[in-house]
Formats: sequence, C-alpha cells, structure tokens
Amino acid sequence: MITAHKIKILQSLDKKKFRQKYNLFLVEGNKTIKEIPNSRYKIKEIYSVSPEDLPVAKSLITQIEPTILKKISFLQHPKDSVAVCELKENFLVENVEVQLILDGIQDPGNLGTIIRLADWFGIRQIVCSEDTADYYNPKVIQASMGSFLRVNIVYENLEKVLANSHSAIIGTDMVGQNLYDFKFPEKFSLVLGNEGNGMRSEIKKLLTDKVTIPRFGSSKATESLNVAMSTGIILGQIFSEK
Amino acid sequence: MITAHKIKILQSLDKKKFRQKYNLFLVEGNKTIKEIPNSRYKIKEIYSVSPEDLPVAKSLITQIEPTILKKISFLQHPKDSVAVCELKENFLVENVEVQLILDGIQDPGNLGTIIRLADWFGIRQIVCSEDTADYYNPKVIQASMGSFLRVNIVYENLEKVLANSHSAIIGTDMVGQNLYDFKFPEKFSLVLGNEGNGMRSEIKKLLTDKVTIPRFGSSKATESLNVAMSTGIILGQIFSEK
Repeated sequence: MITAHKIKILQSLDKKKFRQKYNLFLVEGNKTIKEIPNSRYKIKEIYSVSPEDLPVAKSLITQIEPTILKKISFLQHPKDSVAVCELKENFLVENVEVQLILDGIQDPGNLGTIIRLADWFGIRQIVCSEDTADYYNPKVIQASMGSFLRVNIVYENLEKVLANSHSAIIGTDMVGQNLYDFKFPEKFSLVLGNEGNGMRSEIKKLLTDKVTIPRFGSSKATESLNVAMSTGIILGQIFSEK
Repeated sequence: MITAHKIKILQSLDKKKFRQKYNLFLVEGNKTIKEIPNSRYKIKEIYSVSPEDLPVAKSLITQIEPTILKKISFLQHPKDSVAVCELKENFLVENVEVQLILDGIQDPGNLGTIIRLADWFGIRQIVCSEDTADYYNPKVIQASMGSFLRVNIVYENLEKVLANSHSAIIGTDMVGQNLYDFKFPEKFSLVLGNEGNGMRSEIKKLLTDKVTIPRFGSSKATESLNVAMSTGIILGQIFSEK
C-alpha cells in the first residue's frame, strides 16, 4: 500500500526544494537500482511492479500497480521500479589526477551525459559551480544511467577551487590550440562552460591552456557541438594517448 | 492572420503520416530558418512573433501573437518563428568517401545529434534503414540545429546498399579492434545500430571490420555509451588522424 500523501511527496521530488526538505531523491529502473547497494547511497524504500529480482531486503519493497507507478515516475515510459534514496553530502577531494569542472551547465540531460562520460573514462570527480543543475534532479539521474553512483559530484565556488589548484586548468575556446596537437599533462582540470554563454570570464582568466576542437566540415557547417558531445570528443582524444 | 484550420494542420505535423499527406515539415527558430534560403529546401510560409530580420520575401511571413506560436510550436520553450517547408526527396549518392549507415536508430534526439556530428565532421551522406526515425520529425530537426540542411539523408534497404559497396564497412562491436589502434581507410561506411539491440545480424554479417571503444573506467563503470556519443568519439578519433 502506498498512501496518497506519500504519492504527493514522491511527486514533489522533481524540485530541489522538496528533495532537500525530505532529504530524498528518486532512482528509476531495476537495472540501476540493483547497483545502489554496492554504492555509498542508501535506499529507503522501493515501489515496484516487478520486485522479484531486486537484491535488497524485502521489507524495503512495496509492490504497486502500474497505474500507481505511472503517478510516481518522472519518465514518459515508466520502468519497473522507483527507489527512494537518501541524499548524500559529498566532499571535495583535493589533488585528484583528472577532474571535470562544470561552470553553469543547465540542461539535466547534458549533466547526466557528462557524469556517464566521466564514469566511462574513469574520472572520479566532477566539481560543479553552484548554479550548475542539481545532479539529484530525476532527469540527471536518469541520463547518468547509474554513473552518479561512482563519480564524486560536488558543488563549490569554482574560483576558490581553481585558485588553489596546482595543476593545469584546461578549457575549450574558439581560439585555442588544436585539440589533436595538444599534449595533455598527467594532472589537469578540464573546464566546461554553460550551454549558451560558455564559461564565465572570471573562470576563463584562470585557464592555463585553451584548446579548440577543429571543425572538419565546410565553413557553412554547424558552428558548434553540444557541450556533452564536446566533452566526449575531448575525453576520447585525451585517453587515446594513454 | 492564421486560421484555426491551418493551426490544426501545423499541429498534425509531428506525425509522419500528416507530414507526407501535406508534404510539409516545420523548422523552428530564426537562427536555423535563416539558413534555409541557402539550402535545397523551400520555405512555404513563416509564422513569427519577430519577423524583422528574416531574409525572405515579406509575402511569406505572417506575424502572430506568442499565444499562437505556443500552439503551433513543438518546443517546450517556443522560439521566435516557425517555418513551414516542403518535404524534399533525397537520392542515394554512390561511392561517397565516408558515410554513416544507421540501422534502426529510434530516438529523434540521437538522430538529430548524429546529423549535427556528420555536418561538423564534413560527412555528406547518412543512409538510414527504413525503420530509422524520420528526420523530418520536429524533434530531429530541432536536435540537428540546421545541420539537416547540409547532409544528404536517405532511407534505403541497407542490405542492398551495403552489398553493392566497394569500400570498407566498419561497425562497433563489444569484441572488435581497439578504436585507438585501428587504421581507418580513406573510404568507408560507419554502421551504427539501434539503441537497445545494436545492428541487425543481417547487417553485422556484412561488416568488413569491427571496432571497440575501450572503457577506461573500472570494471564497475557504465557498460556503454549512448549511440550518438559513441559516434562522436569514433568520428573524433578518425578525423584526429587526418
């Protein structure tokens, strides 16, 4: 059984205000939910239409009808289960080898995709500006496909963090060194800016190197790539040299 | 003035059936609309809340109120204008140097992103299986950001097209050569498969080479990248060698 009051609480968790009020966020789909017990995150309860093979204590699970799932899911096509998890406070790890710095990424899909990329390339930390989208947003969790469980995502004053950095701070710029000629050092922070406006000038000033992804199409071709795609192409290039 | 009947027709254009019935599709946003006069596509009419700087005959433009724009736009946050354009029939160009082959790509966002990538990397043709998403879908047009104007997108029987190919047919596979060691030939087709199931076995049989994008994260890391992201990383690697 799930009460109408509980449904209302779960439905409110697409808003940061309510996630913080209740200290909860949602993870959808058995595939990702199965990975939670091996992570730092804690499941408080699970609402599921097919709870059979979930590797968690049965006491956590409430079986529900598809019509209820539809009410509490944030997906257009709801999956099998919704797990209600407790928010975790993350702490900045200093002196990591490679980290991503996000300056004002707004789109939840982009943030989720970047988290998934970090995981794929073994990058352990993403430092976000305070105005970057909240990674507990259900759309971010969804797009990250479970990768949020393995990457340390923190929200910090970027200027402070970067001013204390002892390694290279690399950002993309229209006028920078050709990505494919640039030799990435062992330790660095890769800065990615807002979808529309790029990184703020205060952050740009702190860059030690600027790189450009060369365009191979004609001069009429598209002017830019989406920020998540740029991240993927840059990381692909960096790791091709390792 | 725009009639209620016209609004109804425009609203129906998110369905392929109606796009074909009326021989029309929509392009949203002045930025992309401005590029149409330099392309093979023809604008039939434009509905705009800010038509001032559109470089088209004034007779094509109808000024409308934001409330009307909201009705005819397929975007969550409508832009300034909606252009109604005529469908164009595209024809397969044989013997192109590099082309993408899409076997059952379903997600409009992925298709649009792949079209934008092709444009960025100067790839002139995308050959889609007949069950790939329709590129005239407003979500595809939107995600392609005007790149659909510069890439020849055709729908064909892939087995026939590939059986007639004289150049390498390269696809991604869990067990393939390491992308970063693979030497891409001058001429090739790069095959990308369906989001959930990959390419069909009939197509896989026709591959001359298989490549794998190596994962640099731990064995626990995400199992896969999204198909559009994989395409970006592979194309980034191919063109880094040029």
